[in-house]
Amino acid sequence: MTNTVDHTELCAFIARCLEACGMPAQDAHRVGALMAQADVMGQDGHGVFRLPMYIKRIRAGGMNMTPQFKRLNERPATALIDGDNGMGHLVMHHATELAMQKARTTGVAWVGARHSNHAGPASLYAMMPAQENMIGLYLAVGSANHMPPWGGTDMLLSTNPISVALPSGQNPPIVLDMATTVAAYGKVKTAAQRGETMPEGWMIDREGNPLTDPARSAEGFLLPIGGPKGYGLSLIFGILAGVLNGAAFGRDVVDFNADSTSVTNTGHVILALDIAAFADPAQFRADIDDVWAQMKSSDKMPGVEDIRLPGERLDRVSKERTANGIPVPAPLRETLSALAADLGVTPL
Amino acid sequence: MTNTVDHTELCAFIARCLEACGMPAQDAHRVGALMAQADVMGQDGHGVFRLPMYIKRIRAGGMNMTPQFKRLNERPATALIDGDNGMGHLVMHHATELAMQKARTTGVAWVGARHSNHAGPASLYAMMPAQENMIGLYLAVGSANHMPPWGGTDMLLSTNPISVALPSGQNPPIVLDMATTVAAYGKVKTAAQRGETMPEGWMIDREGNPLTDPARSAEGFLLPIGGPKGYGLSLIFGILAGVLNGAAFGRDVVDFNADSTSVTNTGHVILALDIAAFADPAQFRADIDDVWAQMKSSDKMPGVEDIRLPGERLDRVSKERTANGIPVPAPLRETLSALAADLGVTPL
Repeated sequence: MTNTVDHTELCAFIARCLEACGMPAQDAHRVGALMAQADVMGQDGHGVFRLPMYIKRIRAGGMNMTPQFKRLNERPATALIDGDNGMGHLVMHHATELAMQKARTTGVAWVGARHSNHAGPASLYAMMPAQENMIGLYLAVGSANHMPPWGGTDMLLSTNPISVALPSGQNPPIVLDMATTVAAYGKVKTAAQRGETMPEGWMIDREGNPLTDPARSAEGFLLPIGGPKGYGLSLIFGILAGVLNGAAFGRDVVDFNADSTSVTNTGHVILALDIAAFADPAQFRADIDDVWAQMKSSDKMPGVEDIRLPGERLDRVSKERTANGIPVPAPLRETLSALAADLGVTPL
Repeated sequence: MTNTVDHTELCAFIARCLEACGMPAQDAHRVGALMAQADVMGQDGHGVFRLPMYIKRIRAGGMNMTPQFKRLNERPATALIDGDNGMGHLVMHHATELAMQKARTTGVAWVGARHSNHAGPASLYAMMPAQENMIGLYLAVGSANHMPPWGGTDMLLSTNPISVALPSGQNPPIVLDMATTVAAYGKVKTAAQRGETMPEGWMIDREGNPLTDPARSAEGFLLPIGGPKGYGLSLIFGILAGVLNGAAFGRDVVDFNADSTSVTNTGHVILALDIAAFADPAQFRADIDDVWAQMKSSDKMPGVEDIRLPGERLDRVSKERTANGIPVPAPLRETLSALAADLGVTPL
């Protein structure tokens, strides 16, 4: 039993599990490929790690295995998709392909989705346009509220993320993928599992004092980046991905981790921008290489070895894991083996 | 000599000054209206306060008083405008009108600009679509670099702002308008003028230590919100507003305050999104009222009187100043009187 798997094996395993739950084969392979891609990219908290939770929800009847996507509203450069409570990966893959197809003609396209579900890492969808001389921008309402409005204590907002991806020439694509909170909630859970203390600035308690014990995380909330600024970003991204699409926002957000049956009505947005509508794509790529060169050649603070660009780690990990496989820690492998046994499919 | 002026008086004064510098009357009145609107909105650092600096640049030959805007590239939902080194207010007013016109048909439009100049506050343009049942999103490359890439010491990035504005029903529009740095540079200058100490977190020096004396601001840099996240946002917004449009970015950014003659080649982006392409606008406005109600009714941290939404202060100040006039502090009035005398126009 090796400690690593490759993308193909992992994709096939995920697809087997989903097919055993009633998902059509083609859809199961698409979700498998996207989830395994998240692991290749080093987004470990958003890849196969989530499979048991997805399957728990599927078996509880909380997701539709045979969704019929509907276009509720369409213009030359926009569409609103109803995901029919299908897996978020399928909804957003569909939405992103539609946005790219529209943007090839119109220059830019904005496709929103409602009645979707958790779709994995934001960068998975922002990077699709970036592979075809486009710029991708993705927004989503997070799958559970972990933050109050600035100054408040009611958890009405999520870590509502943004991802923007764009191609370079000789360098990796630039890929920003960030929560609007200082720390994503997954980092808190990881710290709790490891018995570590959190740095000040990640969370505060209901009196506004720093909360550094991750075991007490239920007593406090995540802090937004830049205080009221991050609150504003989370609110705006939530309105664009949620309210505008008729998707859940605020009090209507279902905690995906705690509740496996209620329809989440998750909302997302994908924007695709065709670089050729503004610049020669080859020149743009060369200009982005120059951006890389400028940032990399900056003088450094004491103790700093390297200036990094957003997407650099993602690219390095992707190459490393494509060459050497995706590490599967023993506890995760055990969980996945139990899942396979439970579903009656061949384990990983 | 009163301490306040109204929008009409201030607009007329600004227009007189610009006409005296050779700007056609219609353009001068448009710029006057936009700059005075910035003052009405309480964006004091981006209104008539900037007039002496703009006029210094105009007289030094650093801006074109009779620009011919060109559409360098156009698709149904996109355009790239060359501002011909005109005042940024004129370029971005033109770009925003074009984006709104396109979005009425296509659902969304993205208009970029190059060879523009400082255009005042970001929200001035994001709010134009919000007045016509659209959502506005504005990005710009800031007019001087004040920030290195994360971990570096070369000032390659600006405070690259974002503004997003959208209408509500009974409540004020939601208007986010923020720099990607913890503090905008204007706040540092204000602290220096007042002899105040800056809070830790606004700036660091070249060794990474907190810099709290604003008189030493030239020895350090602004800090991005959320550390590397704000660096990523500034970089991405700079690429979208600058590099993609063929506008200045990184080492090519001209310090607008220090250099009055070099062409700045400022880049901006305006996106307009037609709400009706996704939802019934009346329903959307009601949904945004519900967002207001949810945030406002949150329980509060100890010592917090009110939960605020982005745009609330802007709306309150706008109403107050529309009713009672725009305050003009004595030192600013003296500066403007000297400017009027210098230009041979009637003072404010």
